[in-house]
Amino acid sequence: MNETGTERASTRSRENTRARLLDAAAQVFAEVGLGEASVEAVCERAGFTRGAFYSNFDSKDELFVELVGRFVSERVEAVRRRVAELLESGDILAASTDAEPANAVALVQALDVPGDDRFGVMLMNEIRIRAMRDPQTAAAFLAQDDRMLREVAQLVDDIAAAKDIRLAMPAEDAARMVLTAWEGASARALIAGATDEELFAVRSREIARVGQLLIDRA
Amino acid sequence: MNETGTERASTRSRENTRARLLDAAAQVFAEVGLGEASVEAVCERAGFTRGAFYSNFDSKDELFVELVGRFVSERVEAVRRRVAELLESGDILAASTDAEPANAVALVQALDVPGDDRFGVMLMNEIRIRAMRDPQTAAAFLAQDDRMLREVAQLVDDIAAAKDIRLAMPAEDAARMVLTAWEGASARALIAGATDEELFAVRSREIARVGQLLIDRA
Repeated sequence: MNETGTERASTRSRENTRARLLDAAAQVFAEVGLGEASVEAVCERAGFTRGAFYSNFDSKDELFVELVGRFVSERVEAVRRRVAELLESGDILAASTDAEPANAVALVQALDVPGDDRFGVMLMNEIRIRAMRDPQTAAAFLAQDDRMLREVAQLVDDIAAAKDIRLAMPAEDAARMVLTAWEGASARALIAGATDEELFAVRSREIARVGQLLIDRA
Repeated sequence: MNETGTERASTRSRENTRARLLDAAAQVFAEVGLGEASVEAVCERAGFTRGAFYSNFDSKDELFVELVGRFVSERVEAVRRRVAELLESGDILAASTDAEPANAVALVQALDVPGDDRFGVMLMNEIRIRAMRDPQTAAAFLAQDDRMLREVAQLVDDIAAAKDIRLAMPAEDAARMVLTAWEGASARALIAGATDEELFAVRSREIARVGQLLIDRA
């Protein structure tokens, strides 16, 4: 069955409304936390009525689960693109005769993607704590965690192959260590009041340290 | 000036009320999150009136900051005691002729202290996300993080000395890696629906893996 022009316009308008509500909700959640965020505050930020909200989402929780999925897809996609760029350009991999710092730099650059500023880190932490209590959010979180882990493992594998390096552990374990260090460093830096620039610097140092350990020196 | 018997009894009763309110609040915060937890719910759990609450605390936030301080002191103290026990007994350090697994086991045992079950992990994550938004909570969090880091660094140093092992990095960096792995593994296991027993098993594996990397093989 063909969609008419009116139906298409109506679908576009609906998608636009949903997208604007999701954007507004992401901001409000990151600012005040999921628990303190009201549907009213989200509507006000988006410039819509409560009616518009409830004709698009059953509840704040339903919106949050969709937000998790969207945010996570964007992060995974950004890492994937960055990995492809790094491997195609070869610039970073060729930048140093000493393999280790170059690898660490490549990892940091590949991981520090858009959405990983102060705002993104707070939203990820909101998602994480919500996932500890809510099975739907947990499923979305675990799916993203798995995708992200595989992307980073692929990156680690590709860098190791390009530089003829033997890893000290399976690529997936190495990826887990890198991601865990990344998350821990992000959270601590934010709590210490780091700017976005300092956030990047702190993470670079911490991931570089982990990067040194991933290489088998035997 | 000497306290009278009546004053002492009154101080004890006040301390008892505060302690019960703090215990109740810890439960409610871990269950529903700080944002969703109401003063009413805390009072109901503790069996006190709102009047009793507000004669002890100015606000939910003031109570939370005190709770952070108490919880964190208990964790640090538990790790400290465990380190002392392990080093005095010598049992674990002597348990294996292969130094590495024994070290990993000792680290895991030293870190897996009371309060690190499902409930404790959720509360720590509530504290962490609150610390990203609130300077008072941030100060309490950073102080605990620093104390915990120093305790674990001391543990790492003591184990290395006892087993005549050279570390691959400064003890404080090693401690940071262990703590970060511990936190990351705890959060992921909880989200995946782990029981307290599985939580311990997952953390043991992850910390054992990190433990292997901390030893200098050069």
